[in-house]
Amino acid sequence: MKHENHREDVAGRANVEDTPELLAYYDDLNRFSAGALWTVANKIEPWEPQSQSVPVVWRYADLRDKVLRSVDLVTPEKAGRRVIYLRNPGRADVAAAVGWLYAGLQVMHPGEVASAHRHSASAIRFIMEGAGAYTVVDGHKMTLGANDFVLTPNGTWHEHGVAAEGSPCIWQDGLDIPFVNAMEANFYEVHPDLSQAVGYAVDDMTKTWGNPGLTPYGETWTKRYSPMFKYEWAPTYEALLKRAQCTDGSPFDGVMMEYVNPVTNGPVMQTMGASMQMLRPGEHTKAHRHTGSYLYHVAKGRGHSIINGKRFDWQERDIFCVPSWAWHEHVNASASDDACLFCLSDIPVMRALGLYREQAFGENGGHQPIL
Amino acid sequence: MKHENHREDVAGRANVEDTPELLAYYDDLNRFSAGALWTVANKIEPWEPQSQSVPVVWRYADLRDKVLRSVDLVTPEKAGRRVIYLRNPGRADVAAAVGWLYAGLQVMHPGEVASAHRHSASAIRFIMEGAGAYTVVDGHKMTLGANDFVLTPNGTWHEHGVAAEGSPCIWQDGLDIPFVNAMEANFYEVHPDLSQAVGYAVDDMTKTWGNPGLTPYGETWTKRYSPMFKYEWAPTYEALLKRAQCTDGSPFDGVMMEYVNPVTNGPVMQTMGASMQMLRPGEHTKAHRHTGSYLYHVAKGRGHSIINGKRFDWQERDIFCVPSWAWHEHVNASASDDACLFCLSDIPVMRALGLYREQAFGENGGHQPIL
Amino acid sequence: MKHENHREDVAGRANVEDTPELLAYYDDLNRFSAGALWTVANKIEPWEPQSQSVPVVWRYADLRDKVLRSVDLVTPEKAGRRVIYLRNPGRADVAAAVGWLYAGLQVMHPGEVASAHRHSASAIRFIMEGAGAYTVVDGHKMTLGANDFVLTPNGTWHEHGVAAEGSPCIWQDGLDIPFVNAMEANFYEVHPDLSQAVGYAVDDMTKTWGNPGLTPYGETWTKRYSPMFKYEWAPTYEALLKRAQCTDGSPFDGVMMEYVNPVTNGPVMQTMGASMQMLRPGEHTKAHRHTGSYLYHVAKGRGHSIINGKRFDWQERDIFCVPSWAWHEHVNASASDDACLFCLSDIPVMRALGLYREQAFGENGGHQPIL
Amino acid sequence: MKHENHREDVAGRANVEDTPELLAYYDDLNRFSAGALWTVANKIEPWEPQSQSVPVVWRYADLRDKVLRSVDLVTPEKAGRRVIYLRNPGRADVAAAVGWLYAGLQVMHPGEVASAHRHSASAIRFIMEGAGAYTVVDGHKMTLGANDFVLTPNGTWHEHGVAAEGSPCIWQDGLDIPFVNAMEANFYEVHPDLSQAVGYAVDDMTKTWGNPGLTPYGETWTKRYSPMFKYEWAPTYEALLKRAQCTDGSPFDGVMMEYVNPVTNGPVMQTMGASMQMLRPGEHTKAHRHTGSYLYHVAKGRGHSIINGKRFDWQERDIFCVPSWAWHEHVNASASDDACLFCLSDIPVMRALGLYREQAFGENGGHQPIL
Repeated sequence: MKHENHREDVAGRANVEDTPELLAYYDDLNRFSAGALWTVANKIEPWEPQSQSVPVVWRYADLRDKVLRSVDLVTPEKAGRRVIYLRNPGRADVAAAVGWLYAGLQVMHPGEVASAHRHSASAIRFIMEGAGAYTVVDGHKMTLGANDFVLTPNGTWHEHGVAAEGSPCIWQDGLDIPFVNAMEANFYEVHPDLSQAVGYAVDDMTKTWGNPGLTPYGETWTKRYSPMFKYEWAPTYEALLKRAQCTDGSPFDGVMMEYVNPVTNGPVMQTMGASMQMLRPGEHTKAHRHTGSYLYHVAKGRGHSIINGKRFDWQERDIFCVPSWAWHEHVNASASDDACLFCLSDIPVMRALGLYREQAFGENGGHQPIL
Repeated sequence: MKHENHREDVAGRANVEDTPELLAYYDDLNRFSAGALWTVANKIEPWEPQSQSVPVVWRYADLRDKVLRSVDLVTPEKAGRRVIYLRNPGRADVAAAVGWLYAGLQVMHPGEVASAHRHSASAIRFIMEGAGAYTVVDGHKMTLGANDFVLTPNGTWHEHGVAAEGSPCIWQDGLDIPFVNAMEANFYEVHPDLSQAVGYAVDDMTKTWGNPGLTPYGETWTKRYSPMFKYEWAPTYEALLKRAQCTDGSPFDGVMMEYVNPVTNGPVMQTMGASMQMLRPGEHTKAHRHTGSYLYHVAKGRGHSIINGKRFDWQERDIFCVPSWAWHEHVNASASDDACLFCLSDIPVMRALGLYREQAFGENGGHQPIL
Repeated sequence: MKHENHREDVAGRANVEDTPELLAYYDDLNRFSAGALWTVANKIEPWEPQSQSVPVVWRYADLRDKVLRSVDLVTPEKAGRRVIYLRNPGRADVAAAVGWLYAGLQVMHPGEVASAHRHSASAIRFIMEGAGAYTVVDGHKMTLGANDFVLTPNGTWHEHGVAAEGSPCIWQDGLDIPFVNAMEANFYEVHPDLSQAVGYAVDDMTKTWGNPGLTPYGETWTKRYSPMFKYEWAPTYEALLKRAQCTDGSPFDGVMMEYVNPVTNGPVMQTMGASMQMLRPGEHTKAHRHTGSYLYHVAKGRGHSIINGKRFDWQERDIFCVPSWAWHEHVNASASDDACLFCLSDIPVMRALGLYREQAFGENGGHQPIL
Repeated sequence: MKHENHREDVAGRANVEDTPELLAYYDDLNRFSAGALWTVANKIEPWEPQSQSVPVVWRYADLRDKVLRSVDLVTPEKAGRRVIYLRNPGRADVAAAVGWLYAGLQVMHPGEVASAHRHSASAIRFIMEGAGAYTVVDGHKMTLGANDFVLTPNGTWHEHGVAAEGSPCIWQDGLDIPFVNAMEANFYEVHPDLSQAVGYAVDDMTKTWGNPGLTPYGETWTKRYSPMFKYEWAPTYEALLKRAQCTDGSPFDGVMMEYVNPVTNGPVMQTMGASMQMLRPGEHTKAHRHTGSYLYHVAKGRGHSIINGKRFDWQERDIFCVPSWAWHEHVNASASDDACLFCLSDIPVMRALGLYREQAFGENGGHQPIL
């Protein structure tokens, strides 16, 4: 039997050479479902993270036609969901766009409805185009417009549709399916009626919980995700403009607001968080890196990002990823207009478990040399 | 020496008659700074609270002229603050409007500035009339308009003024001075320069922290009061209108939103909280009572409240109080317009200490007979 | 009508002299339940707290006989509780021992039982002498020995007794009755059966929740007071001895442990907290002062405390108080034995409301000159 | 190119047959790092978790000799750590004993010291045999005895040794290395001096923080792991005995205590938790299953567990695992002595992220049929 042996000639690291006696010993251990730590210690205790994901930009100019074509190819009934998913070359085995995050582009035509279901994985939607889309989450119906951000938390019944008088709608789905699978904790259930009754005023959760510095008196919310299921674009963009009047912004991220659960000021869900950031006209941020996996969606404008020394150009509706511990910096290509990046990440996981760490790029004025 | 003796002929209550032997014993105890519990037990353990405060309505029609006249009578320099305070007949000894809450009407003329100070007592302002008022809290300057709600938390430097081009301004002050005095924890300090430097963009705290479901990325706020120092009227009223689309409201309070610290969704300060409630056209709420002291300010409309069986009429800018455990219900006098009540209370104290309790009026369809 | 006027000739303080015009104005305000703030501002905004309580030591040598004599004078049935309470000369109006804290010495003879009741006030017991005492709190029976510390939180049914085979028992009661009355939130109820059924193993709450670094799996406790109703003396003293091996202690308090709710590591109840501190042989602490009211019970040893410059000697079972913002330091009179002070306080209130403040005595090596 | 296609003939599930047109479409998507969700949806959204781990029992009788033999084969200097790790046949790729948990048996001889290091992975030790072992964590030295449970949290410097006068020592290591690697967040650092200075009294953290219902006054601890680095066996076993007097125990787990951070009553670390449970003489628990991965260590006694219908016998010092969502029940083989199981798990991760779920085995009186 062949054994691994990862040696390093550094004090405090494993550095044991194979001998016939040791190899026999390893064989012996193997028979009892055991091994010698020193043969793998350096592999499983790396000096710093090496992500399996690679940086990718998914251009909407490439994908939009393909997404629309799926309407002709499959029905929502047969497909369950009519979605083209983003497959990171380093994470094809788990169907992830980056790290443990799944993402896809879903399309629905006017009058179409997808059946209701629920699962332990959590989901978000970020609306890209079209009129008349809606989603129903645990009986709460929400209307959806471009750049709206919508939650479908772990365990909630949900279904989507487009009103008969609407137009073809496309949105980005984001889920933690790969992560929940890795944690061996995913459950799936189809709604017994395949659809939900709507039991509340349309958009009630946003109207009730989405008021600045005000909470509905006497209401309690103890679930561990945000009761504000939909975050609309207009107040989000307005918040960025107001905040920009009061701050120089982050050297790494410009003017950035985090979507939060208004009950806790913490992340919108336990496993995924989201933010919207504004790069002001001509802004070129400095480089930094942090643990966690990040999926950006260009909500407005155009520019480029430099990720681990490589340039990735983007424009509105493009999606790109930054893997864990990858250096990255962003550039707004316009000298007159701002650019806005929506970002979905697993930063709530990293923070909840004490695994978040970040580092500024110290050399070269904070900018990576382009490879 | 004369001794109290509060007897009740109820099982489990003290019921010991005075005898010469006992009276001598009480004298003896008294010499050692001691007493017999059974003589006072029934007094200090009442069956339910009996407030020392009485219900009062302070009509703006009565007070406005008097407040304005103070401008001619005293300067801010000599008065420290030019304020007419509301004195509950049952609480004159502690200068309280109700319970342990102080309230006053402050007036300033264009170009006037009051000196900066700080204290352990917390304060709020609720703006009544005039243009050009501003307040500075720990270096953050805020512009003030009618029905805006502003915080001056425990320990923050603060000062007020009216711009030279403004008009005479009147606002309500609300403080927990009587409570902090009772707790023997009040400290007072005059600012060494008598005024503060403004170190931030005007209204920055509201622009930064007052966005629905959005928090400024990377900012931390660990102080135990809200960083959103000013809550403006327009979004507050809009929140009530939106919420009214989604709820039948509380039977006791109509449509009510609580002002909160956006970082905790809890009260804006540790010792005082505030809410704004809308009585819809023609609404007549049911009666209930709860512990805590409540000071209402009529932000909009007219109507009346029935407090412990007595009717109190009110209109815009009037102020009235509801003492602890007093039955109360509210009536909007208009069949076409809503009425809005701002309410300042010590409910955060009651909740933080486990002393909050409430009860619905069970008889007569939930309405008090008028005495 | 006579009006107060508290003037100070300090910038930022009120300093308005009475004039006939102003006095007439004050009369006018008075008719509308209002007053001029500047007449009372300096009174209600003091530079620092001035406690109404005075330091007192209650010597057990003085009180023990009187307490025992009450057995002959009244029955528990007639007295409700057979208790001699400690009356601070500055707080006789509210029956407090210090600040808003009530304290008393309760005595029961073998075979006696007091009727069950509950109230919004919270209570503690600290056992002084005797064998066979027990208390029942919400159906949990606890046996009581000297220096045990027991809780009867807000709203819990409770009753006490001494087993027929026991001896006369005396313990200190401590309650927040004056505070809860001041907050106008006290409710009182006699148990419908005058006694409770015991529904659990004796001392189950301490056995279940009182284990170091271990919690009962699957149990939840959401009430806002400690589930560990009894804190026994032996492990408390042992904790002090162990801690003394690891720390130099506080310069002001020696080696001190705080009794906590094991579910939160916070105070045992929302309105009162307690601690046990050890003064090592010969220890003389430095002076400091803090807000809040403090009632000490000498659990072991003898010594003295200097409070606001006055010396108060104490020995085992004596009780003494330190008012809010009073300077105090403690001295163990023995060069060979430790002395232990149990302390009951309202520090949880001060902390929960942001009113706690402390200051070291800076001069004279940290020791007060004795007046 | 070959494409996956996981079809299910169930309403709400994907069920699209391959056609030449679709296969060409899939090829096209693949060129743009994309895929059709419906081809993999049923795979990545399973009806319930299917663990990759298999149940295993590692018998100490098998492994002890091999562990001791490693002393002759490698030095701590060359090996870094002299550890035999437990390799689950389903998780050999990530060196895990179960799920994302690593475990190993470490041996040190008297006088040996391992070099100090730190990493983002968290570790525990559970002491198996020998005298004189110690560990140093961030400068705090702890002595180690059999069945003591010790923490080495994320980011703390740590090193181990055995006193020269001791005997050969063996303990179980448990780490979340596979998980932290999967999260791409592992960092590793060798101590610059290869060893730490000890800056505190021996065992100070346990003496300071390990007292029932008592916290060290004035100390604050804000790190997100327990300050009580060592949990000794004697008080743990005593806690089980006391708790057994007050409860019938859990039908699934007997009498169980969870090791907790005394500051939060939550798990000892953010990514791993631990418990100790007692199976009373003759106890046979009922079966249940839950998400999360579990590694049991037999601290006392002998018996067997039935895991997914298969019987696994165990005795003192054996280690066995229960994978996520596997049915399991435990049996104490002795009619006279209790058996104690220490359990290390990732339940804190499951709970922090909302992924914990459990289910009782409903049939057959709660007992699994043995396959």
